[in-house]
Amino acid sequence: MSMDRLITRILETKNPSVAGLDPKLSYIPDFIKEEAFAKHGKNLEGAAAALLAFNKGIIDALCDIVPAVKPQCAYYEMLGWQGVKALSDTIAYAQQKGMVVIIDGKRNDIGTTMEAYAAGHLGVTQVEDISLPAFGGDLLTVNGYLGSDGIKPLLKVCQEQNKGIFVLVKTSNPSSGELQDQCIDGKPIYRVMGEFCEQWGEQLPGQYGYSGVGAVVGATYPDQLTELRKALPHTFFLVPGYGAQGGGAEGVAGAFDENGLGAIINSSRGILCAWQKTGAAPEDYAKAAREEALRMKEDLCRVIPPMKAPAEAQ
Amino acid sequence: MSMDRLITRILETKNPSVAGLDPKLSYIPDFIKEEAFAKHGKNLEGAAAALLAFNKGIIDALCDIVPAVKPQCAYYEMLGWQGVKALSDTIAYAQQKGMVVIIDGKRNDIGTTMEAYAAGHLGVTQVEDISLPAFGGDLLTVNGYLGSDGIKPLLKVCQEQNKGIFVLVKTSNPSSGELQDQCIDGKPIYRVMGEFCEQWGEQLPGQYGYSGVGAVVGATYPDQLTELRKALPHTFFLVPGYGAQGGGAEGVAGAFDENGLGAIINSSRGILCAWQKTGAAPEDYAKAAREEALRMKEDLCRVIPPMKAPAEAQ
Repeated sequence: MSMDRLITRILETKNPSVAGLDPKLSYIPDFIKEEAFAKHGKNLEGAAAALLAFNKGIIDALCDIVPAVKPQCAYYEMLGWQGVKALSDTIAYAQQKGMVVIIDGKRNDIGTTMEAYAAGHLGVTQVEDISLPAFGGDLLTVNGYLGSDGIKPLLKVCQEQNKGIFVLVKTSNPSSGELQDQCIDGKPIYRVMGEFCEQWGEQLPGQYGYSGVGAVVGATYPDQLTELRKALPHTFFLVPGYGAQGGGAEGVAGAFDENGLGAIINSSRGILCAWQKTGAAPEDYAKAAREEALRMKEDLCRVIPPMKAPAEAQ
Repeated sequence: MSMDRLITRILETKNPSVAGLDPKLSYIPDFIKEEAFAKHGKNLEGAAAALLAFNKGIIDALCDIVPAVKPQCAYYEMLGWQGVKALSDTIAYAQQKGMVVIIDGKRNDIGTTMEAYAAGHLGVTQVEDISLPAFGGDLLTVNGYLGSDGIKPLLKVCQEQNKGIFVLVKTSNPSSGELQDQCIDGKPIYRVMGEFCEQWGEQLPGQYGYSGVGAVVGATYPDQLTELRKALPHTFFLVPGYGAQGGGAEGVAGAFDENGLGAIINSSRGILCAWQKTGAAPEDYAKAAREEALRMKEDLCRVIPPMKAPAEAQ
């Protein structure tokens, strides 16, 4: 199951972080863009080619020290189908380099439509008698506003294909509380959604005690991270908002369990734009990304318990 | 603004319905698939070509009598980037034929990421000094679980590009109540989300009294449709669940105002699979779709007030 594969890679690299591949054109060094535009034209195709080349450099620089990448669909879709092709190629390249791929699509729908998303992003699509992977991600972020009808079709595909999901629980943005902090019978909605994750996860048990149904919980809400870690013992957390969104290592410490597991912390701009922030030469963008990833790993490991597989999994 | 364009087309066609373009391969006549597979191979590309050819036939048959189409992203994404290219081509073809296009993507994220979705699906993408539309839809369905941070970036793009959105409020599925019917201070969440729509819509006023921020409310919940129509006077409704999901014309009557406006009713399988349901020849699939669309129009017009532009808009 892919949550197990993610945790195994975290243990192997001793690094509980994921690189968010959210590349805007402005993050990409000119020499990459110029080459892509020269070849494909200054258009969506050229921009998508620049994205892919940039991503490959980042993946090459990180694949032995960072367990996973998380491409954010929006930045690929904004370049049309050409961008979506670059997303597809990025996923394949990262997996080929041994990385686990979390597709950040926050998809949501019901019934057969949600099955279609599950097939497309995690499973296989039937073209008559032939089964073909479309995007072939390992994990997918999803939004549970529609209730169980929106999640159950995913669980079926996850079971069959050994994949997993992350459900939005408490997002990192300032206004996330408008709905998520409101109380139903005295219990905040993020907590209700978190408990749904525990329940949905029963169908996808994992070898490290964490199920195939994880939760997205923002680094910007340390108290809720700590509260939810205790309340949801089988739910692995994907934590956005470290660094660029203001959350630091101390803020995410509560997301981890006594084995230093339980969460993976995302950094997107921090890693992708490291070359701009440090004033590195554009040619060294990937090297700067690697240095930032190592700095982040150290920063995180400083505040969490020494990482080890739980006794029952060893 | 695109909600105005949608309402204008509804008035012109006297038809408050939208054809959901959710084509599964099993809905598509063999002769179309065989031709596509012969040309492109029995693979994702071939399947995507079959989808596009099928859609074009449906659009040709409906464009003078149905105001809009609503392609559901999931069925295109399940065919990978090749399917997403077919989505892009479908959108362009429908617009060329005068139809309004609602992209059913239920997208959701925050800040610059949501801006990227807005640019991609509704606006234009900047490639250096050049502005290019990526998907170029007229309206996009979105999920508001993340709060205002997830919606405001869309409003900016909608203002600049004269586009609009539909926010999930009360979805048509059986388990939608798990979260959406729960009460916050005595008020159900769908109602809270609906009131957010009224508030967000203030930034996008429309000529018919309906703003550029609409709401998705399922045909399967007639009481909530009636309640929300009264409570949300500036919010236009996109209503799924007619026909195949069990809701009939009587059930959706409450979604309309005294001018026979206020809502557009979706039918996907009912229209796309009409040829299979009626036993029509595969070659007549588009004709069968047109007949079903006309039947549905009559069915709806039977239960709603005679359609006219409100006095203040004339």
